[in-house]
Amino acid sequence: MADEISTAMANCQGKSVLLRLRDSKTIQGSLIDFDIHMNLTLENAEDITDEKHLSLGKVLLRGDNILAISLPTDKS
Amino acid sequence: MADEISTAMANCQGKSVLLRLRDSKTIQGSLIDFDIHMNLTLENAEDITDEKHLSLGKVLLRGDNILAISLPTDKS
Amino acid sequence: MADEISTAMANCQGKSVLLRLRDSKTIQGSLIDFDIHMNLTLENAEDITDEKHLSLGKVLLRGDNILAISLPTDKS
Amino acid sequence: MADEISTAMANCQGKSVLLRLRDSKTIQGSLIDFDIHMNLTLENAEDITDEKHLSLGKVLLRGDNILAISLPTDKS
Amino acid sequence: MADEISTAMANCQGKSVLLRLRDSKTIQGSLIDFDIHMNLTLENAEDITDEKHLSLGKVLLRGDNILAISLPTDKS
Amino acid sequence: MADEISTAMANCQGKSVLLRLRDSKTIQGSLIDFDIHMNLTLENAEDITDEKHLSLGKVLLRGDNILAISLPTDKS
Amino acid sequence: MADEISTAMANCQGKSVLLRLRDSKTIQGSLIDFDIHMNLTLENAEDITDEKHLSLGKVLLRGDNILAISLPTDKS
Repeated sequence: MADEISTAMANCQGKSVLLRLRDSKTIQGSLIDFDIHMNLTLENAEDITDEKHLSLGKVLLRGDNILAISLPTDKS
Repeated sequence: MADEISTAMANCQGKSVLLRLRDSKTIQGSLIDFDIHMNLTLENAEDITDEKHLSLGKVLLRGDNILAISLPTDKS
Repeated sequence: MADEISTAMANCQGKSVLLRLRDSKTIQGSLIDFDIHMNLTLENAEDITDEKHLSLGKVLLRGDNILAISLPTDKS
Repeated sequence: MADEISTAMANCQGKSVLLRLRDSKTIQGSLIDFDIHMNLTLENAEDITDEKHLSLGKVLLRGDNILAISLPTDKS
Repeated sequence: MADEISTAMANCQGKSVLLRLRDSKTIQGSLIDFDIHMNLTLENAEDITDEKHLSLGKVLLRGDNILAISLPTDKS
Repeated sequence: MADEISTAMANCQGKSVLLRLRDSKTIQGSLIDFDIHMNLTLENAEDITDEKHLSLGKVLLRGDNILAISLPTDKS
Repeated sequence: MADEISTAMANCQGKSVLLRLRDSKTIQGSLIDFDIHMNLTLENAEDITDEKHLSLGKVLLRGDNILAISLPTDKS
């Protein structure tokens, strides 16, 4: 990741992010950490793809499965 | 990205771009930033694949999922 | 790309090319620029996969989604 | 993996982890070891995708097939 | 490509080759040039997958979509 | 592969291993050799995916198709 | 490929090998040459996937499409 993108991620640490994965699952959780491959760890993660949310606890997600990360806006 | 392609992207910063993703989703938003892997951040992003648009807010999209980026022409 | 292949592409700049993408879409447009990864920019691009052509304007296409590029022959 | 992510994995050694694979299988087992590619070895592994759990014994899993790893929280 | 493989390809320049692509299409054409990634250019290329052959003219094919190349034998 | 993972594989040489491939086939055989890409050679290999086992003899399997390797435990 | 694996392949030159490809096709032929990416050339190749064998002549197969190579045993 270039610095700009990396900064955008760093600003999200400790905040809730929404991940859309390549297999069309949607994961929500609080961003703990990440690395240059976009591998990241989430706390209190939930698979919210279906109506019935699935608690995942603390998870490590491989960056290459991630499609998009919804970042909290500065106001939220 | 080579310089020419990178310049084409840089010219789009702050403008609205239309992304077609590998999973055939279409995302529209205002380009904030990008890096050499075509990872990019969008503001006021919307998933406009289906009739019912889905607001995504500020998102980070991994470059390797991007199929094509419709660039605003100089006139628009 | 090796030099020979790169030259074949350079000869197409400003000319109309036909792209077949991995997802079996067919895109036509005027080649503006390209880089060593075959990322390329097209002007007046159209998705001509289906009967109903879809105007795409100016687009940037990631090289790794491209299957084949029909090059204009020297005569055409 | 960056150090932070690597530390998160190291903290799991000897503990039970839950893996979600790209082919949507779910594997549970006790983490023995891992490397920078997230290749990892599990003991007493079980494929718990379906109701009928499938005992796999000691397995080596390639990192590039892993979607997510549920990490035990510090309390558990 | 190692030298041996590269030589096998070089021997085909100006000759007709048959390509089988990953998406199970079959392309036939006269090999103009190629590079180390097996990107190659064909003249008088035809998509001969279906009964109805499709003329493609001069095409550039990305090597990573190629499954196999039928090489002309020395006699033919 | 890191050393720990490599050692786990080395301990299996001459022993029977069970491979699960990405295309959901299951292969069993006696591990002869392997390299850092997890390319490996098996003796007396069998495709045991279906009821009717298929003898494969001596095979070389590309590492990037391997999902998981069931390792013999020290006792077995 | 590591040396051990490379030697296993070198021992097959001039002999008949059976290839299983990622798209579940099965190819048989006499191994002429190969490189470190497992790109290989076969003589008298046949697609033996279906009952009706398909003669392919001399072919170059890209290594990244290969799933497994059945090697002739020393006795055969």
